[in-house]
Amino acid sequence: MNITALEKIALSVRALSIDAIQKANSGHPGLPLGAAELGAILYGELLRHDPADPAWPDRDRFILSAGHGSMLLYALLHLAGYKDMRLEDIKTFRQVGSRAAGHPEYGMAGGIEATSGPLGQGLAMAVGLAVAETMLAARFNTAGHTIVDHYTYALAGDGCLQEGVSAEAGSFAGHQGLGKLIVFYDSNKITIDGSTDLSFTEDAAKRYEAYGWQILRGSMYDFEEIGRLTAQAKAEHKKPSLIILTSIIGKGAPNKQNTADAHGAPLGPEETAAAKQALGIPGDFYIAPEALDYFRAKRETWGKTRESWQAQFEAWSKENPEKRKDWDNFHAGKALPAALPVFAQGDKIATRSAGNKALGAIAAANANLVGGSADLKGPNAVGFPNSGVYSAKDRTGRYIHFGIREFAMAAISNGILLHGGLRAFCATFMVFADYLRPALRLSALMRQPVIYVFTHDSIFVGEDGPTHQPVEHLAALRVIPNVRFLRPADAEEAAEAWTMAMDRGEGPTVLALSRQNITVFPKEDPEWKNTIRTGAYIVKKAPGGSPGVVIIATGSELGLALEAAALAVEKKVQVVSMISRELFESQPPAIQESIIPPGVRVVCCEAGVRNGWERWAKPEDIFSIDRFGESGPAGKVAEALGFTAGALAAIVNR
Amino acid sequence: MNITALEKIALSVRALSIDAIQKANSGHPGLPLGAAELGAILYGELLRHDPADPAWPDRDRFILSAGHGSMLLYALLHLAGYKDMRLEDIKTFRQVGSRAAGHPEYGMAGGIEATSGPLGQGLAMAVGLAVAETMLAARFNTAGHTIVDHYTYALAGDGCLQEGVSAEAGSFAGHQGLGKLIVFYDSNKITIDGSTDLSFTEDAAKRYEAYGWQILRGSMYDFEEIGRLTAQAKAEHKKPSLIILTSIIGKGAPNKQNTADAHGAPLGPEETAAAKQALGIPGDFYIAPEALDYFRAKRETWGKTRESWQAQFEAWSKENPEKRKDWDNFHAGKALPAALPVFAQGDKIATRSAGNKALGAIAAANANLVGGSADLKGPNAVGFPNSGVYSAKDRTGRYIHFGIREFAMAAISNGILLHGGLRAFCATFMVFADYLRPALRLSALMRQPVIYVFTHDSIFVGEDGPTHQPVEHLAALRVIPNVRFLRPADAEEAAEAWTMAMDRGEGPTVLALSRQNITVFPKEDPEWKNTIRTGAYIVKKAPGGSPGVVIIATGSELGLALEAAALAVEKKVQVVSMISRELFESQPPAIQESIIPPGVRVVCCEAGVRNGWERWAKPEDIFSIDRFGESGPAGKVAEALGFTAGALAAIVNR
Repeated sequence: MNITALEKIALSVRALSIDAIQKANSGHPGLPLGAAELGAILYGELLRHDPADPAWPDRDRFILSAGHGSMLLYALLHLAGYKDMRLEDIKTFRQVGSRAAGHPEYGMAGGIEATSGPLGQGLAMAVGLAVAETMLAARFNTAGHTIVDHYTYALAGDGCLQEGVSAEAGSFAGHQGLGKLIVFYDSNKITIDGSTDLSFTEDAAKRYEAYGWQILRGSMYDFEEIGRLTAQAKAEHKKPSLIILTSIIGKGAPNKQNTADAHGAPLGPEETAAAKQALGIPGDFYIAPEALDYFRAKRETWGKTRESWQAQFEAWSKENPEKRKDWDNFHAGKALPAALPVFAQGDKIATRSAGNKALGAIAAANANLVGGSADLKGPNAVGFPNSGVYSAKDRTGRYIHFGIREFAMAAISNGILLHGGLRAFCATFMVFADYLRPALRLSALMRQPVIYVFTHDSIFVGEDGPTHQPVEHLAALRVIPNVRFLRPADAEEAAEAWTMAMDRGEGPTVLALSRQNITVFPKEDPEWKNTIRTGAYIVKKAPGGSPGVVIIATGSELGLALEAAALAVEKKVQVVSMISRELFESQPPAIQESIIPPGVRVVCCEAGVRNGWERWAKPEDIFSIDRFGESGPAGKVAEALGFTAGALAAIVNR
Repeated sequence: MNITALEKIALSVRALSIDAIQKANSGHPGLPLGAAELGAILYGELLRHDPADPAWPDRDRFILSAGHGSMLLYALLHLAGYKDMRLEDIKTFRQVGSRAAGHPEYGMAGGIEATSGPLGQGLAMAVGLAVAETMLAARFNTAGHTIVDHYTYALAGDGCLQEGVSAEAGSFAGHQGLGKLIVFYDSNKITIDGSTDLSFTEDAAKRYEAYGWQILRGSMYDFEEIGRLTAQAKAEHKKPSLIILTSIIGKGAPNKQNTADAHGAPLGPEETAAAKQALGIPGDFYIAPEALDYFRAKRETWGKTRESWQAQFEAWSKENPEKRKDWDNFHAGKALPAALPVFAQGDKIATRSAGNKALGAIAAANANLVGGSADLKGPNAVGFPNSGVYSAKDRTGRYIHFGIREFAMAAISNGILLHGGLRAFCATFMVFADYLRPALRLSALMRQPVIYVFTHDSIFVGEDGPTHQPVEHLAALRVIPNVRFLRPADAEEAAEAWTMAMDRGEGPTVLALSRQNITVFPKEDPEWKNTIRTGAYIVKKAPGGSPGVVIIATGSELGLALEAAALAVEKKVQVVSMISRELFESQPPAIQESIIPPGVRVVCCEAGVRNGWERWAKPEDIFSIDRFGESGPAGKVAEALGFTAGALAAIVNR
C-alpha cells in the first residue's frame, strides 16, 4: 500500500471538492472532506474496476449512499481516469449540463452506479446489487471458471442509517447472508440539525449485529486499518459487513470541521483560504502530480485484470456455449417473446390471476426475470412455476420473499436492475404503493424498467376497508414522469400488459390489477392487441357507427361501462378501454381522434379520484370516487358509494 | 387476578371472532385467536380506562398496530362495555355501516384510538401518543396534583416490526426515553407467506435493545407472567418496553393454528365446528356469562377511578386557574388568533421564511402547538421563539428533533394529535413528502389536522437537482381526499396559509413553501384575506375590467404570471392566485365565476406536472413542467426547461 500516494489522492479530493463547491456557491463539503481517505483507498486500492470500461460486468460496485457528498465521487472518478468525468465537469459542478450534478445522477457518467440523493435508498440499492451478483454467480459460474465474482461497496452516513428503508434493507441483507456486501459507515456524529445527540443515540452497531451483519470498527484516517478491515469483511462470506469509521465532518477546514456548518454549504472565501493553507493546497482545483502518477500506473494493472477476466470469459464461453447464450440473452436488454396464455370470452377471472399466468409464460421464456412480493405472494398472485425461492442456501431461486418491507423491496429491485443482466418485478397491494413511492420515483428517474405489480387496485377490494382501498393511487402514480401506468380491463388485456411491461426498456411499469373476478369481454377492434399499445382501443363501437357518447373506462370499470352502454342504448355509446392514459395522450392527434372522435361527448369512468380525467370530459361527465372507501363486500361498497352501472348510465343519458 | 374470569374473556373473544369472521366470510382470525389472552388481561386488568367515558383524557391508550386483528379489539370493547360497539356491529363485522370495519377505523366507536390497517404505523402512532402524554404531564402536573399520568400500550406483530416506519419510531422512542410506552410483540413466527424463516430472522429483541428499549419475554398464555412483565415495564421509567410474547397464530383452531392459513381467511364451517368443540364454545356469538359478570363489576371500579381523577382535576383547577385556562384552550379544538407578521409590498422573502414568522406568532398565541422537522430545522425554517427542545430531560420543549425519519415523523405527529390536547406540525423538503405519504393519508382518513410544512416546493430548489426538485408532488398531494393543499404565492399569503391551516379542524393541511425569495406583490382585491379562503382571488384585474385571458398561478409562479401579464398587455390579462385548487373547486359556481368569468380563456401556470389543471385550461394553455428537473442554479434550470415569463407570455399571446 502506497500511503504517500493515497494521502495525495485524499488531498486532491479535498482540493477539488473545496473549490468546486465554492465556485458553484452550492454543495456539501462535509462528506468529501471528512471521508477523503476512504475514497482514496477505495478507488486507489480496494475497488476492482477499470475506468477504461465502466460497464465491465464483473467490476466491483460502489454506491455513495450519502449522495450529497457527490464531490467525493466526482473527484475520485476524475482522478482514477473515468473519461466521462472531466475536470471541466468538476469546474462546472452543479451547473446545468455538467456531469457533476448536485447529487450523483445515474447515466450522467461512467462510474456513477446509482442516483443517490434521497437518503437510505443507496444502501437498499446496494443490497440489490449484491443480490444480483449472487444470482448471476449461481447461474453462470462453473467449476472451471468464475466469471461473476465481485463485491458491492457502499458509503453511508448517519442520515442513511436513520431512514426506515435502510433498516428494512439491512434486515433483508442479514437474512440473506449477503457476504459480498460491504458498507462503510461514515460516523461523524453530525447531521444538519447539529450533533446526533439531538435525535440519534441508538447503538447502530448492535442493531446491525441483530440483523446478522459482521461489525468492524476503525478510523477514517488510518489507511492500513481500512485495508485490514476490508480484508476482514471480504473474508466473511456469510454475512454482510458494516465497517464503522469514526470521522470528522469537513476535515481540513480548520474552523468549520466537526460542526454542522461544514455539512451543506460552501466553506466561503475565508475558510477556503484557511483550509488550503492548513492542508497545503497550492492552487485552485489542485491535483497532486503523485496522485495522477499513481492512477496512471494503476490503470495499467486494472486493464490487465480486466483483460484476464475477458480471456477467462472467452474460455468459459467456449466451454459453455449454452450458458454463454443465456448470458447474452440476460444482457441483451430486450425481452424474449413468450407464449402468452389464452383466455376465452366469458371467462371470469381476476386480472391478478390472469397476470399470474402471463408472468408464468414470460418467466419461462425469460430466465433472467426474478422478483417477489412484500409477503403477499398468494394475494398478489406472483408465484410462478419452477422459480425456486432465493435464499442464502439457494442463489438460483428466482422468487424473492422480500418480507413486509415494501420500500426496501422496490429499492432492492432498482439495485438488481442497476447491476445489469436481470429484470425484476416486485409486488404489493396498490394502496401500499405509497410505502414504496420514493423508490418508484428513482426507477423512473434512473430509467430502470422495474415492473411493479399492484393488485387490489380499487374499492372493489371490499371488506378490508378504506386503508386497503386505493382511490387516489391511480392518479398519484400517473403523475410521476416516466412511469408507465397500465390498468388492464380483463384477462386478455392483463396478458398484453405484462408483455408491454417487459418490452419497455426506458423506465418502470406499474400493472394495476384487480382482486375481483372480471368477465373477459369481446373486443370489436380486430387489431386490439396492436391498438392497445397506443394506450387505448375501441372495445365496442356505437350501434350504427357514429357515436353519440364515448365512455372511456379503465380496468375493472370496463365491465361497468359495457353495462351502462347497454342501459343507455339510444345514446349510441362507444366504449373505449384506456389501459394507459399517459401513453394515449402522447399519441399524435390522428391516432387519438381515431379512438375518440373530436366533438363527441365523453364520459370517463374509473373507480378512483377524478384528477386528470378533466382533459377528456367535463366535470359532470366524470364518474369517479372522490372520497375514501368503506369496509364491506365489494358490491355493497360500490352501491354505498353510488358507483354502479345504473348511475353511470344515468350520467350517459343526461 | 381472577384467572378464571380472564380465561372466560379470552374464550369469548375467540368465540366472537370465529363467528364474526365466518359470518362475514372475510377477516383475519389468526391474531384474535392467537392473542386472546393478552386482550383479556389488557382490558380486564391492565388498562386504566372507563368504557362509560371513552374520551376521559387520562385514560391509558391502546393501539392495535396489527390492525387486521380487528376482531380482537371489537370483541374486547364490546365485552368491556363500550356502548358504541354493539353485538349487532360484531354480527355485521366488515359490512357497510358496521362500526366493526375490516380494520379499526378511528371515529367509528369509542375505544378505537387510531386507524391501524397499514402495518407499522400503529407503533409509530403509539410513540406519538406517548410523546403527547409526557408533554401534557410536564405542562399541567403540579407538586400537589398529577392529572396526566397514563400509559400507552400497543400490540404489534411480525409485520409491524419489519416495516421501516416502526424502526424509525423505535429508534426515536428509545432516544426520547419514553418510559410509559409498552409494546407487546405477538411473536407467532408466521406471516402471510409462511414461516418468518422465509424473510425475517433478525434478532428483534437485540435490535430494540440497541434502540435503548427494555426487553422482556414471556408466553402469550400465562396471565400471571404477562401481569408481572407489565408491572416491570411500568416500573422502568426511562426506557420504553418491548414485551415479547411467544404465541400461536390462530390458537384454538385445531387444524389451522400455527399455520399461515389461520392468518387472513375465515376458518370455514368445518374448522369452525372443530374449534368450537375443542374450545368448548356452546353456541354462536357466544359470550361467557362469567366474562360479562366480571366486566360488570369492573365497570364500577373503573367508574370510581375516573371519578376520583375528576375530583382531583377539579381540585387542581381550583388551585391552578391559569393552568386550567390553558388546559381548556389546549382541548378546545380551536386555534387562538395570533398577531400575524406584516410584510411590505416589494419585500423579497421566501415563503418558507415568511411562514416561519407566522409560525412564531401562531405558536406564541397557541401554547399547544408543537412540532419539528426531519433534521431540516434551518432549511425548512421551522424553529420558533421560546420553543425549547423536547427531550428526555425536558418534556416542556415544543420543538421536536425527529431525526432523518420522515415517515415516523408524520406518524408520530398523528399520534400526538390523536392523544388530544395538542396541535402538531412536521416539516421536510416537499420531494420527501413521498417518504411520509402513507402517514399523511392516515391524517386525512382519521381527520387529524396535522400541519405538513413542505419547503423547497419546485425546480426552483436549484442545484440539488432532480432528486430534490418536486415536479409531480403538487399534483400527487392534491389527489388525496381530505388533504388541504395550500401553495401561498408570497409572504402575505404564507401568513394567511398558516392561519388557514390552524383554523382547519377536520383534516391535514399541506403548506407548500418556496426555498427562493419572492417579491411581495400588490393585491387589487381589497378583501383578499377573506377571498383567499375560497381558494383563489384576483391579484390583478385586467386593464379596463373585462379580461381577455385569465392566468391562474400558484405559489412562486405568481410572479411569473404578473411578469407575463405585463409582457402580454394587449391581451387584457387578469391574474388569479389559486392557493388551493381543491378548495376553489368546492365553491359554488357563483363564487368560481366571480374569479374566473365563464367563457374567458384560461392559462394555468405552475412549476409542476399539468395533471388536474385540465379542468381549467386546454392542454395547450397549461404552462407546466412535465419532466424531472435538472441540477443548476434555479434561474438557469428554469431557462433550461423553458419555464420563463417570456415563454408564458408567448402562450398568452398565442
